[in-house]
This record gives sequence, structure tokens and C-alpha cells, in this order.
Amino acid sequence: MLKFSAMLKQLLRLYQERVMLDSVQSVIGWDQETYMPPGAIQARARQSAYLSEKSHAIMSSDGFRAAIETLVDVSTGQVSPDVVDPLHRRMISEAYREWKYAVSLPSGLVCELAELTSQAQHEWQIAKKNNNYSHFEPYLRRVVHLTHRKIDYLGYSERPYDALLDIFEPGVSTTHLTALFSDLKQLTIRTIQTQKNADQNAQFPEGPYDLAQQQELSLAVLKLMGFDFNRGRLDISAHPFSTSFHPTDCRITTRYHDGDLMDSLSSTMHEGGHALYEQGIPTDYFGTPIGTSISLGIHESQSRMWENMVGKSRAFCEGIFPKVVAHFPQIRPLGADGLYHAVNRVSPSLIRVDADEVTYNLHVLIRFELEQLLFSNTITTQELPDAWNQKYRDYLGIVPPSDSKGVLQDVHWSIGAFGYFPTYSLGNLYAAQFYEIAEQEIPNLESEIRNLNLIPLKDWLNRRVHAVGRTMTADELIHSVSGRELGIEAFGRYLGKKFS
Amino acid sequence: MLKFSAMLKQLLRLYQERVMLDSVQSVIGWDQETYMPPGAIQARARQSAYLSEKSHAIMSSDGFRAAIETLVDVSTGQVSPDVVDPLHRRMISEAYREWKYAVSLPSGLVCELAELTSQAQHEWQIAKKNNNYSHFEPYLRRVVHLTHRKIDYLGYSERPYDALLDIFEPGVSTTHLTALFSDLKQLTIRTIQTQKNADQNAQFPEGPYDLAQQQELSLAVLKLMGFDFNRGRLDISAHPFSTSFHPTDCRITTRYHDGDLMDSLSSTMHEGGHALYEQGIPTDYFGTPIGTSISLGIHESQSRMWENMVGKSRAFCEGIFPKVVAHFPQIRPLGADGLYHAVNRVSPSLIRVDADEVTYNLHVLIRFELEQLLFSNTITTQELPDAWNQKYRDYLGIVPPSDSKGVLQDVHWSIGAFGYFPTYSLGNLYAAQFYEIAEQEIPNLESEIRNLNLIPLKDWLNRRVHAVGRTMTADELIHSVSGRELGIEAFGRYLGKKFS
Repeated sequence: MLKFSAMLKQLLRLYQERVMLDSVQSVIGWDQETYMPPGAIQARARQSAYLSEKSHAIMSSDGFRAAIETLVDVSTGQVSPDVVDPLHRRMISEAYREWKYAVSLPSGLVCELAELTSQAQHEWQIAKKNNNYSHFEPYLRRVVHLTHRKIDYLGYSERPYDALLDIFEPGVSTTHLTALFSDLKQLTIRTIQTQKNADQNAQFPEGPYDLAQQQELSLAVLKLMGFDFNRGRLDISAHPFSTSFHPTDCRITTRYHDGDLMDSLSSTMHEGGHALYEQGIPTDYFGTPIGTSISLGIHESQSRMWENMVGKSRAFCEGIFPKVVAHFPQIRPLGADGLYHAVNRVSPSLIRVDADEVTYNLHVLIRFELEQLLFSNTITTQELPDAWNQKYRDYLGIVPPSDSKGVLQDVHWSIGAFGYFPTYSLGNLYAAQFYEIAEQEIPNLESEIRNLNLIPLKDWLNRRVHAVGRTMTADELIHSVSGRELGIEAFGRYLGKKFS
Repeated sequence: MLKFSAMLKQLLRLYQERVMLDSVQSVIGWDQETYMPPGAIQARARQSAYLSEKSHAIMSSDGFRAAIETLVDVSTGQVSPDVVDPLHRRMISEAYREWKYAVSLPSGLVCELAELTSQAQHEWQIAKKNNNYSHFEPYLRRVVHLTHRKIDYLGYSERPYDALLDIFEPGVSTTHLTALFSDLKQLTIRTIQTQKNADQNAQFPEGPYDLAQQQELSLAVLKLMGFDFNRGRLDISAHPFSTSFHPTDCRITTRYHDGDLMDSLSSTMHEGGHALYEQGIPTDYFGTPIGTSISLGIHESQSRMWENMVGKSRAFCEGIFPKVVAHFPQIRPLGADGLYHAVNRVSPSLIRVDADEVTYNLHVLIRFELEQLLFSNTITTQELPDAWNQKYRDYLGIVPPSDSKGVLQDVHWSIGAFGYFPTYSLGNLYAAQFYEIAEQEIPNLESEIRNLNLIPLKDWLNRRVHAVGRTMTADELIHSVSGRELGIEAFGRYLGKKFS
């Protein structure tokens, strides 16, 4: 028993050191995207690579291995029965999962992938700008090739693609996702065919929308959401993102364009949802394997819930309308009802990030299917644009006029993030299933939202989701909140209520 | 020879790693003073302590010791004659000096001092706010006590205070400084007695001075100075400072009060001078023991030169006046001549940071003398306020009405930075001695400045001072630029020309 407790201590000490390095790296990463002068990029890349290397060195150290091998049966992944405390068991199994990933990959492959994807991302930017897929294709081919090798090292029980899914959404399998997403596809197509958006004519007046006023509105909405400005900030970056260094330091960004009022506000609510999650993780857990979010899907459920289920609800539109008018009087003729319809227009479109709530998931499904085709060697990277365009024609009824607005639109593949896209749709499904329970458990949620009292929802999420940290798996969490496994039913009811 | 070259390689590799950790720490330190939300302070302190500890661990590692002991005769500090390249010799001797400091202090003492000064700084803030020296005195007493122990570990050849001076200004001794500062004191008192400031009535009109306009003016002046915004930024903080993560990433801050126009502009030029130095250090040297500034005195020479010798010159006042008027029309009645006189008023005052160019050094001398009295056990911390007030009466003819405006005004002692103040006056002396040569070597410097063409001076400093990195000592640098050792003569001529 002494041996177990000493080794657990060692495991947690090393893990904490790694979290420290990662959190510092997040600070300099945030700085890079917000304030860093452009000429510093090379020096920053070296700082960042140094911290990554040190963090990886801890995970692959002899000390970490010794602790893991004492505490876990590495042939089965089972935590030793001699560890009895359930929180300790959970810490160990999460640490084991991360350790296994870290030591599975030879450092040569990790370096090669890091260098390649850094260049591939750069070449992708050029290719997207010049609408020249063939410029990017050789790099993408190599990324796919190295990712195949990565899959071999990581291993999988059923399908090669499982190994990729497991990186971002632990416990999810291709088979399970295929079934879930097949239902989601039918649901989406049915909703598109039957949806009646009452007023397709509701439109925002043309800008300009003053940037300082947009910022004030974003800050006001964040405040309504219960975002704690004593433990976080809102800044500006080219692409909105959220990052956390500690529950007391959660930073988000948005962007302001004078031609588009809703882009900044949607982004702020989306990233604000992510940040509320991070601010809500118990500080005591920080530095341990349970002191983090559960998965990308659960994270995305928080951002999508605030962005869509709250931010685009009729109640919120009615509540926020006078505030929007106070900042932008030119909105007045639209009316609260017009605002609601304008932000909820359903229409097949080319760009995922601009898609409405209904068609959004089709964009994700297309990428999910294409990734599987790539990693089952059914199509090559050269055939990818044709396959892309065919699926857009089949599912959305539109064909991209250019690869820039088609296969080149997302950064993910250039950086080797295969298996990432499905977490976006999982987020939507988790959000709907959580929200149904929130509506049952929070008295008069809808009228609270209409009164702009968003704190009951934030408190409920704090209690039911955020405070859990990583003491549960995603599957355990959705069971604990909703009493059942993840499905499309709640999302179907949500779409049905809103769009039929 | 192989052994030497392998050990030199090892030394430089470890040193580079330490620089990497320190540069990352500087990034998170900058963030702490500029954008960090207040609630994050504890998490940030832990990140910072972690990086310090890792940096110190590298310096005190067996690998570093082995390299040093191969390359240096540690009994004399002489670099082995087998190392022939002069840059390598210089790198080794600087690394040796830093290593010796790092390993001289037992880690227990380092921790104790870090904890104590962190608390003492906090208590100092309270004491200053409440004008209650006796609240602070017990903490200061302990800081002095631990600093005495630190001196014992560091060692010294002549006077205990030498050990403290050597931390901030390598190669300077108490004896040498005492002689230099005695001359400086006579010069200052003589200048005060004989100075004729032509127009004591020139005064800035009362504010408010718009903050955004102040910021634009600060940015414009930095641009004139040749500050490279591609490799640096200007932000806002409570106390202006400059920091550098790499020659491609040098950040400065200033502060804007609507009642005071010159505070922001002076601070910007002061910190801008520091930043030009850091931007001018050769990028190739970064990460090595010669890739840094020479000393605090040399650093301060750059800031004081831009703040005072340029920024408060008649030529610059005449040149900048129309620009100031463009931002602040209410300044027009003052006239360029009035501006010159208003920024050059000489008058004994209580607060060092607000002092004019002439009396400033008396503030420093008082602290220098008091520190020596403390570390020769001539006075106690309990007797410090009386000693302080007596010296202000003797040298400046005024007595602080409160300890807040007296002995409690500076942060330095609370954080244990004894031996730091003298570098401020050394900066003034170095600046004057450099500037005399600049005036000889740059054609028509004065009229260039009047035309707001500050680039010739910046280029000259780049070439003669910044590009040197740390390949010379301060003494070697002043010889290389001016052909003689540091003295008060150039500063005397400068004051004489300006104030007599």
C-alpha cells in the first residue's frame, strides 16, 4: 500500500508539473494571437516548441512510467484494485490514457508531424487564398500518410478511424458515431424539407455598426451570462477562440466587423460558453488529471448552448432587443420578432462556420464521411475535391464555385486534426439533451431568459456539468444529467419546436 | 581541446535553455502587469515560481558545474588559456559570473528571501498607504537581516556593500562609487546654487488632456525614435516599465493621466530608450551569455538619454511643439520656449521619480549613503526614517511631511533590491559621456533633433552601444566609445550648458 501511495504521489507531482508547463504555454499562445508583434513569430515558435518538448518529456519520463506501471495493469488499462478512492482511480485512469497516447508515438514521428503540419498550414493558407487545391494537395497527402502511421502506432480495436476519434472524444467509436450521425442526417434533411421560417424577409439593415458599440454590447452580454471578469478577459483576434490557464484566468476573443453586428455577438456568446465551463471547473482539481474539461464534445455543448439555444431563442431575442437598439438605433424597425427571424434563417450554404443551426450538422457529416473514406483508403487526397463537391450537391443541394469555398475552407486537415469535426455535432446533441433537463429543473427558464436573467442557467451548468471536472466520462456525465445515453431525440425535439 | 569544445557546447546548451525559461517568464510577467485579470494573481505567482525554480535548477545543475569547472579556474575566475576565441572567452566569463552568483546562495535562503520579500512588498504598500513606517519596519528589518546573510554567502573583497553592487553593476566598488558620487554631489549642489532657469513662470495649462490624444502622441514620438513596432509594442500599466523576450519582441508600457501631459510622454521616451537598446542587441547573440544588456547602469543611460538629453533639449522642444499643439491646442500659448522651460524647472522636491535632472542624483545619493550605513551596521532600520529626513534636510533643504513621501516612497528595499539605486545615477553619467561623443560624431545632431530626425542618434547608439551586446564590460564600453573611464565631467558640462 505504501508503494501505491508513493507512486500515486509521484504520478500527481509529475502530472502537475506538466499542467504547469502547458498552462504557461497557453499564456504565450494567447499572447501570440492577441498582442504579439508580428516580427516575434519565430522567437515565439521556439519558446512554444521548447515548452511542448518539456511537457512531453515529463509524460514519457521513467518516473511517470514507473508510477503508471505500478498503478495500472497496462495490458488491460485497468486501475489496480489496491487503489480504492474513486477520485484517485479516476485520476489514474485519465493519466494512463494520456500517458499511453504520449508514449505510443515515437518522438521522430511527433517531430516530423509537427514540422510538416506547421508547413502544411502555411501552404494551405496560400492555396486557399489562390483557390489552388493542387498547391496544397502534396502536403495534405503527406499529412494523411503520416497520420496513417500515427494510427498504426496508436492502435484501434475495430476501425483505423477509431484511433483518431479517441484523441478528441475518448470512448466514441466509428460504429457508434455512424449510427448516431445517420439518424442525425435523416432528422436534418426532414427538418430542412418541412421547416417554416415564418418571415424569410427579416433582414438586418446594412451597417456600418460602430465597433466600440459592438464591443460594449459583447461585454454587456458576457456580464449577463455570469462571465467573471475578475477571472477572465475578452480581447480581439483574427479568429475567435477561448483558452484557459487556470479556473481563475479564462480568456476569450471575438472580432468586430462594421458590416456585421451578429458575428461578434454570436462569437462572444459561443466563446463565453466555453469560458463559463473553464471558470466553473473546481480550482482544487487544477493540476490533477480531473482538473480539466471532459472532452471536446462536452466543451462544444457549452458554447453551442449559449450561442444557439439561448442566444438565438425567441425569449433572448425579445429580452436583448431593447439593449441592441440602445447601441444601434438603426435596428429598431426590425423589431424583436424580426431579430429572432433574422438570426434563425435556415438556408443551405457553403461555409460551415456561417451555417444555421439546422444545416450546420450536414457540413460536419460531410467531413466525417470524407475522413473515413480517406482513412479506409477508399479515396485519395487527389480525389478529395470531387468527393467534397459531390457530397455538397447530394446533402445541401449546392456546389461550391471554388475549392476555396469548398474543400479548402477549414484549417483542420492542414494541421492533421482528423477526427476533430465530429465533436462539433456531438456538441449540438449534448447541448440539446442537457438543455431539456435544464428546462425541467430550472423554474420558468424561458421567462428568466426573456428577463435577461441568465444566472439560473449558468448556475445550473456550474452545478451539473462544470463542477464535475473530469471525474466522469462524457457518457457518465450525460447519464448523470439526463438519465440516458446520448441520442438525437432531444435535438430533434428542439429543432421541431423551433423550425416546424 | 575536444574536452573544452564539448564542455563549451554543453555550457551554451544549458545556458540557452535557461534563457528560454527566463524569456517565457518575462512574457507571463508582462501579461501580469498589463492584461491579467486580478483574480489570477495566485495562479500566476505559481507559474512564475515554477519557471524561476527550473531556471535556477539549470544554473545549479551538475552539467553546468562540470562545464564551468573545465573552462574556468574557479579559484581565480580566469577562463582557461586553452579557450582562444575572444567571444567564447567572454561568454564563458559572463556565464561563470552568473553561475557563481546562483550557486553561492543556498536554496533555503533563496526561498526564504523570495517569500519574505513577497510579503514585505505587500506590507510596504499598506504602510505607504497608511503612512505607517512602524508597520513596515519589522519586515524591512528581516529583509536587511537576510541580505546580510546573503552578503556573507556572496563574499566581497573590500566592503560588504560591494557584494550588493556587483549584482546590478558588475565591476563597480563602493570605494570607486563613493569617490565618483562625492564629486557628483559637489557638482549638483554647485549647479543648484548657480542655476538660472530663465523663466520660472512657464507652466502647463491645467488639463484635462485627452487620454487617446496622449496615446497618439506617445506612439508618434516612439516612431520618431525609431522604435520598431513590428518587433515591439506600447501598452498601459500602473507603473511604466520595459521588458524584452527577444530582440524581436520588446514591450514597453506607459500610463496616461488626464491631469498631466508630460508624465506619459516622459515615461514613453524613457522606456522607449530601454527598448531601443533591447531591439538593437544582435539576434545572433540571443540565448548566449553575450546576448543581453551589459548592466543596469548602461541600460539606464539609454533611457535617461532619450528622456532627458533628447526629450528635454531645447531642440526637441522646438521640434515637437507643433505636434503637441496639434494634439493639444490649449498648449499653444505656452510656446516652444515655454515648453522647454516648463519641462526643465529645477527645484528640490520630495519624490525621486518626479525630480528634475539636477536634483535627481541627490535622491539617489541619499539612498546610496543610507544603504551603506545599514550594511555597515551604523544605523538600524528603526533609525532609518530619521536618517532619511536628516539627509533630505541637509542635501535638498526640505523635510518630508510624512514617511509616505519620505522613506516609504520606493518599492526597492521591500523587495531586497539594495545596491540598485546607484545604477540610476550611473545611467545619467554614462548617458552624458556617450552623448558628448554622439554630438562629435553625428553631423549636426542638434539640428537633426530640431527637425525631429532622431534616427541618426538611434543608429549611432545601435552601432556604438546596442550592437555590442555583452561582449564588453561597462568599463570597456565607455572606454571604447569615449576613450576614457566613467567620470562626472561630461555630465558637469551638460548641466553647465543647460542650467547656467
